[in-house]
Amino acid sequence: MANSKYEYVKSFEQSDVLLPDTWIVVRIDGRGFHNDGDAMLFVIRLLLSDKYGFEKPNDRRALDLMNAAAVDVMKELPDLNIAYGVSDEYRWPTYFPSTPLEPPHLPTFDGRAVLYPTTKTLRDYMSWRQVDCHINNLYNTTFWALVQKGGMSNADAEKELQGTVSSDKNEILFKRFGINYNNEPEMYKKGSVVYRQYQLEEPNTGAGASEEQQPSSAAGDKEKELSRSQQDKLRKLRQKAKVVVEHVDIIKDDFWARRPWILSNRPGKLPVDS
Amino acid sequence: MANSKYEYVKSFEQSDVLLPDTWIVVRIDGRGFHNDGDAMLFVIRLLLSDKYGFEKPNDRRALDLMNAAAVDVMKELPDLNIAYGVSDEYRWPTYFPSTPLEPPHLPTFDGRAVLYPTTKTLRDYMSWRQVDCHINNLYNTTFWALVQKGGMSNADAEKELQGTVSSDKNEILFKRFGINYNNEPEMYKKGSVVYRQYQLEEPNTGAGASEEQQPSSAAGDKEKELSRSQQDKLRKLRQKAKVVVEHVDIIKDDFWARRPWILSNRPGKLPVDS
Amino acid sequence: MANSKYEYVKSFEQSDVLLPDTWIVVRIDGRGFHNDGDAMLFVIRLLLSDKYGFEKPNDRRALDLMNAAAVDVMKELPDLNIAYGVSDEYRWPTYFPSTPLEPPHLPTFDGRAVLYPTTKTLRDYMSWRQVDCHINNLYNTTFWALVQKGGMSNADAEKELQGTVSSDKNEILFKRFGINYNNEPEMYKKGSVVYRQYQLEEPNTGAGASEEQQPSSAAGDKEKELSRSQQDKLRKLRQKAKVVVEHVDIIKDDFWARRPWILSNRPGKLPVDS
Amino acid sequence: MANSKYEYVKSFEQSDVLLPDTWIVVRIDGRGFHNDGDAMLFVIRLLLSDKYGFEKPNDRRALDLMNAAAVDVMKELPDLNIAYGVSDEYRWPTYFPSTPLEPPHLPTFDGRAVLYPTTKTLRDYMSWRQVDCHINNLYNTTFWALVQKGGMSNADAEKELQGTVSSDKNEILFKRFGINYNNEPEMYKKGSVVYRQYQLEEPNTGAGASEEQQPSSAAGDKEKELSRSQQDKLRKLRQKAKVVVEHVDIIKDDFWARRPWILSNRPGKLPVDS
Repeated sequence: MANSKYEYVKSFEQSDVLLPDTWIVVRIDGRGFHNDGDAMLFVIRLLLSDKYGFEKPNDRRALDLMNAAAVDVMKELPDLNIAYGVSDEYRWPTYFPSTPLEPPHLPTFDGRAVLYPTTKTLRDYMSWRQVDCHINNLYNTTFWALVQKGGMSNADAEKELQGTVSSDKNEILFKRFGINYNNEPEMYKKGSVVYRQYQLEEPNTGAGASEEQQPSSAAGDKEKELSRSQQDKLRKLRQKAKVVVEHVDIIKDDFWARRPWILSNRPGKLPVDS
Repeated sequence: MANSKYEYVKSFEQSDVLLPDTWIVVRIDGRGFHNDGDAMLFVIRLLLSDKYGFEKPNDRRALDLMNAAAVDVMKELPDLNIAYGVSDEYRWPTYFPSTPLEPPHLPTFDGRAVLYPTTKTLRDYMSWRQVDCHINNLYNTTFWALVQKGGMSNADAEKELQGTVSSDKNEILFKRFGINYNNEPEMYKKGSVVYRQYQLEEPNTGAGASEEQQPSSAAGDKEKELSRSQQDKLRKLRQKAKVVVEHVDIIKDDFWARRPWILSNRPGKLPVDS
Repeated sequence: MANSKYEYVKSFEQSDVLLPDTWIVVRIDGRGFHNDGDAMLFVIRLLLSDKYGFEKPNDRRALDLMNAAAVDVMKELPDLNIAYGVSDEYRWPTYFPSTPLEPPHLPTFDGRAVLYPTTKTLRDYMSWRQVDCHINNLYNTTFWALVQKGGMSNADAEKELQGTVSSDKNEILFKRFGINYNNEPEMYKKGSVVYRQYQLEEPNTGAGASEEQQPSSAAGDKEKELSRSQQDKLRKLRQKAKVVVEHVDIIKDDFWARRPWILSNRPGKLPVDS
Repeated sequence: MANSKYEYVKSFEQSDVLLPDTWIVVRIDGRGFHNDGDAMLFVIRLLLSDKYGFEKPNDRRALDLMNAAAVDVMKELPDLNIAYGVSDEYRWPTYFPSTPLEPPHLPTFDGRAVLYPTTKTLRDYMSWRQVDCHINNLYNTTFWALVQKGGMSNADAEKELQGTVSSDKNEILFKRFGINYNNEPEMYKKGSVVYRQYQLEEPNTGAGASEEQQPSSAAGDKEKELSRSQQDKLRKLRQKAKVVVEHVDIIKDDFWARRPWILSNRPGKLPVDS
């Protein structure tokens, strides 16, 4: 506010505005994760689990904490449409009763915004993450079975898994350890999707169905023509909805067709009992 | 890591790389502060002070907390050269013994990186902030004197100060409330500068002096030619230095001339007693 | 290609990639036009018309040249969907038989790419330009009538028109100069739209019609699944089509509904006679 | 200028401002050149030489034309400091008396701006280009000697040169074709540097010398403090200087030390005879 002669330095700030009318994906990763490789993820998880005694390959308490955090953020920001957490990316060691956070052993994250201009590319992004979740979890489940139940060293387990495909890992789990991967918790296999809950709609019922699959632009366009007070009203409606955490398939059409409000930005009908 | 057909969505990420060989200023502000105006700052502070009982216009404990945080960050990241906090921007309500943080009343911040290609523009940026600190603090000190000691309403105090210049405010403080602004704590008037402490050097002593004023590029260039192991060694030397918090003039040359290591990136001599 | 020690300077290049799956509008303006204001446009046109003897307010030969250039570009780049030139932006003095280009009095242009993520925003962009064309041309037609037929100075004409709305200008043209603006050439009133010509389709005929209005994403998605050889085939089909210049309404739905190939990127049926 | 409801589309334009106080290098390449590889360059040159009968490996007339164009641009824009053309990048087929340009066989270029924050990085950029020029020209000279004088096919010549270093190529040229590469024209070996000519200064003479090596920032800072009318005056002084084309070493310090005005932005003394 001071009109000093130094104020010209403000002109060095460079604007970095997100393109309007696109789906904004805010992707949050552990700090310093520049690769998506297993090796990197391992390093971190081992470090955190050493420090805070995480269970491997998935620590239920840490996952629950992350989901609780996601629900809180969804509640605070009614403009958010959906959140998705891949279990392999849950790295936040929380202050469990017996293992409080000890600075400087604090988890830090980086975030980036990626724009998807169409509903198809947004859904492909979500599908990409869920496929990744499955592949990582199958790998990790097998790896830790080899280590924890098979008595292998980490290095030997890694070597054993080199070059294997999904069916190989399923077989290792079943034949050597009696584990049927299909029976593993859905949360670990599918990740967690967080969204506002309304009454599910019937998909594939004539004209309505195709509208449900309408790209975001259609919904966005309508919204643009809403007055500010109408938008506030919609926001309040969204705030009333319960935010739920589910571990379901978000690759197939069914999830989206029955929850058209996620992509249309229009609140659905509140469940009778809520 | 999964090579699924969805992986193409990664191509929507847009790179946003900082130009090398420039001074990177990471500026941190309270979330939602897009203006530098008094009004905006007020709103937030009043809200936080309502919630956590901050003293006005400056809360010593909050400032100390911010400085402690800055020192910790400087210690953790030896590549940082200097940090500066303007008291008006200290808004972090900490869990003082008697007033613990109560979610969701949590402070949040936004950060942005601004690049300054020359030492002159970097110093002008710092000068701009310190001028701003002075002007804001003088305003705030007068405003709260009018409110707290003069019994005015906030609106009346704001009106009273409209159009006044620095000498007017000094006079109000002195004549009405017996406050000599010059005697106010340096921390409030000058903000806090955080840096690694080495033995102060003598400025203006021949050839050395001009080198102290050398733009960053000179120093940066030399550093580029260092081997990785030499750089690691320098980093370790920097980590050994004590990080101090001072409330001094950073606009004049003297501060920089006596602490050449800040701009040269070369560690100075450790103080004998440390 | 040389692996010299200087090669690191390449790292200073910053990527600036356009977001995929959006409509890319390449907007070309006369160099140094940072405002859209009449005044600016005037300055340039007067300069060019002084030099090359342009007719005011519209020079048919310059417009024809610009359209010929646009047609050539459309032919050379079959991936282009549509081009639109607002007459007020035609500033290219061509080597008319009697007035060859004389360096350094050369027209120069700046170009910028703007991304529109949806068909609606793309069409709104086009509509914005055509509305602008109409408003500018009405102003210019009236201005030059006042100057050329009414004997006013430029300054007086500008003053006369200050604060007038469209109906005022229509009345000035008609009452003072006997000009019915509606009878002015379509090219001046509507600008020029350049596109590939196929057989016009019938709009509003059941399910097909709504598909024609489908946002680009739908078409784009399908295209993405095409093999490279299929895309080459489509490109060749587009190259076969005649490129036409028309001066028609592109704001209303009709233009787009009858030429679905413009937004769908799918070639239509070649006219029987071409 | 029209305040239509469509005007919101302007908000989709994204600002892309160059960081102030840096050296702006505008690099111009033939359209579609995304690699720096020989192969790519070859393809284009062969195409252009087929069409316009260029001499290989360097066409004197084309190079002269490019230099003439560079001089014109330097004259038109007095704010430019220096231009440099690597002969391998000269691809503009001009209308030589006997070979007029035939549309659509027109050369097109892409341009990009790269920022260098320090004088060192700017000079390293220039050095990089000149090293590249040398290496490319040695390769091309040898390649075309093998083809034109040695009767090899292009493919065989390429194969022959695979894996060779500079001394190998010098030897091929000398032993097989009696060509001493050192005697090749300086223009081909060093490229062309275009700058404003003032009286050369004596380098290495005490205090002055170090000032000549001063990074741009110092000069830039001083300039910033100049009034607008002073800046206009400087611009006019620069316009008075003759623009020259030379084929000299720009890697060593000597070139810059004797022409301090290039980096300081301060006009030198006009030569007595100009």
